[in-house]
Amino acid sequence: MNESLSRMLNKIKPLDRDAMEAARARQDELTKPKGSLGRLEELSIQIAGIKGQTITGFKHKAIITMAADHGVVNEGITLYSQEVTAQMVSNFLAGGAGINVLSRFIGARVVVVDMGTASTLPPHPDLICKKIARGTKNMARQAAMTHNEAVKSIETGIAVIEAEIAKGLDIVGTGDMGIGNTTASSAICAAITGESVEKVTGRGAGLGNEQLAHKVKIIDQALSLNKPDPRDPINVLAKVGGFEIGGLAGVMIGAAAHNIPVVIDGFISGAAALIATQLSDKLKNYIIAAHISAESGHRILLEYLELTPLLNLEMRLGEGTGAALGIAIVEAAVKILAEMATFHEAGVSKA
Amino acid sequence: MNESLSRMLNKIKPLDRDAMEAARARQDELTKPKGSLGRLEELSIQIAGIKGQTITGFKHKAIITMAADHGVVNEGITLYSQEVTAQMVSNFLAGGAGINVLSRFIGARVVVVDMGTASTLPPHPDLICKKIARGTKNMARQAAMTHNEAVKSIETGIAVIEAEIAKGLDIVGTGDMGIGNTTASSAICAAITGESVEKVTGRGAGLGNEQLAHKVKIIDQALSLNKPDPRDPINVLAKVGGFEIGGLAGVMIGAAAHNIPVVIDGFISGAAALIATQLSDKLKNYIIAAHISAESGHRILLEYLELTPLLNLEMRLGEGTGAALGIAIVEAAVKILAEMATFHEAGVSKA
Repeated sequence: MNESLSRMLNKIKPLDRDAMEAARARQDELTKPKGSLGRLEELSIQIAGIKGQTITGFKHKAIITMAADHGVVNEGITLYSQEVTAQMVSNFLAGGAGINVLSRFIGARVVVVDMGTASTLPPHPDLICKKIARGTKNMARQAAMTHNEAVKSIETGIAVIEAEIAKGLDIVGTGDMGIGNTTASSAICAAITGESVEKVTGRGAGLGNEQLAHKVKIIDQALSLNKPDPRDPINVLAKVGGFEIGGLAGVMIGAAAHNIPVVIDGFISGAAALIATQLSDKLKNYIIAAHISAESGHRILLEYLELTPLLNLEMRLGEGTGAALGIAIVEAAVKILAEMATFHEAGVSKA
Repeated sequence: MNESLSRMLNKIKPLDRDAMEAARARQDELTKPKGSLGRLEELSIQIAGIKGQTITGFKHKAIITMAADHGVVNEGITLYSQEVTAQMVSNFLAGGAGINVLSRFIGARVVVVDMGTASTLPPHPDLICKKIARGTKNMARQAAMTHNEAVKSIETGIAVIEAEIAKGLDIVGTGDMGIGNTTASSAICAAITGESVEKVTGRGAGLGNEQLAHKVKIIDQALSLNKPDPRDPINVLAKVGGFEIGGLAGVMIGAAAHNIPVVIDGFISGAAALIATQLSDKLKNYIIAAHISAESGHRILLEYLELTPLLNLEMRLGEGTGAALGIAIVEAAVKILAEMATFHEAGVSKA
């Protein structure tokens, strides 16, 4: 591993126990039966541990949506054609996609990053161009990317979030766009968790039964050809990953190193979290799983990460749409801790 | 049943099928794989059916939190003493309770109604005083209220929501406060669903095992003494209900009659929905279950109502706290339908 990545990983500290104890003590003084706000209470304590103190809300929120293409689409494992990746990036920049709507709703900015689309995207003031290459290679025939490209994608993710932190950032959500990226994510999930490809592979944007069987076959082929080393997450990323997946892993690492909570979206963000948490075991404490997606394999991945999703709304769009709603729940939790009156303040008798 | 209540029930119409079909057609044109926003898509279609058209958001939101006391607390079935009901009403009016925090967060007003607390509450400009009586009678010894009081509590709920509609109201959430009201709700749930008291009775604010067994015994006693008629919801309300529960049933009826979606909170709102939906089978289409609470019995009740909760955050506070978060999800769904670009508008290729 290169030096600057190691340095960033070493910056990730355990959560602040004192801040968490203070938050727990305050939760127990608020005018409600102990524990009656369930996961909202836990979230408020986790956020206190990440920030080192109780906070009053999130002034600056962002969803970082990373786009890239996947050479494996040549195997016919997707419903949509590759050009849709770039078309959707334009849609993000124009404000018309699902993630734009939900980000506006929660008051977050959308940060759109080209990590490696196959197309030449027209320049746009809001597009962050970090193209590692014009899509990955076809992992069913060779490694998806080189070792250097894998490291570079992670470092690029770190650079992207550090630039956002410089602009002001209190919480971040992760999102993805990339035709073919559930295929790469299933491969990562199988490689790292050791589960069978069949179990961790789903219908993506809506494959039928035969198409699904073909997708499973292609992922099996990619894994037996490339033999990713499950103990080496960068090797897994290089062999069967994607540039947006590496970038999102970098976003998670950079966020944790700077005490920013990361709300992860669905299956693709989950695959990135598998890579990132293998690089630093402390990282997991900074991650909140927004939702359980309808993509099979996501549940297996979250169980492996020991993360319990906040929402189950049968969403499977990606882009960061689940993360946006997850951030709203986390912010509600923070406000409960900051704003509710205690029994003493309100003159309410305790049980 | 009295005439004005019948008239209101007759005003509840089936959902607007044309508006729902138009909403479904638009969902399928938006830039995302079909169905990939899961429950958000369903919600947007349901709201279109309720409103008779696609809307752009909810300008006026309210949580109606109704408070009352329960004579059955004399049997020692609660952890908190009865005075806490009134103390919490003061907390609501001062803005320090959980429901105040979450309502501010979602931009909703909190409407606090005294439906029948045992205390004399100090006057407050924001307190709507509709006291039916100073708490119900002890249902373990006699009927909780008279038939007339039961009808009056429902009609009062209708009057409360009609007054709010006059001020401007696009969506409403229901909430409750009443020491002892999980006991009444379990009794209603057992009476109407036919499930055993044991199955539908939970720990309320945090009872231990022995206290829970005692609570079950008291509810069994109340049901065998009063013999509520499951085919007559007003009889069930009178025999083993509560004034806030009747009031909330009225809120639901009035909302549906005026094409206002109702997001119901936890177990107590669910018991009110059991009463209300027995009075009108069309009402269910206007109700959205915000969450599944940690109170056992809530799942049984929602299954009986054929409602699938949006959230599972292990909350069990009441007050409308779950409903507030549920409204945020519903509003997100409405904005998706209103604001997302279509494939044609965005120049994105369809699958």
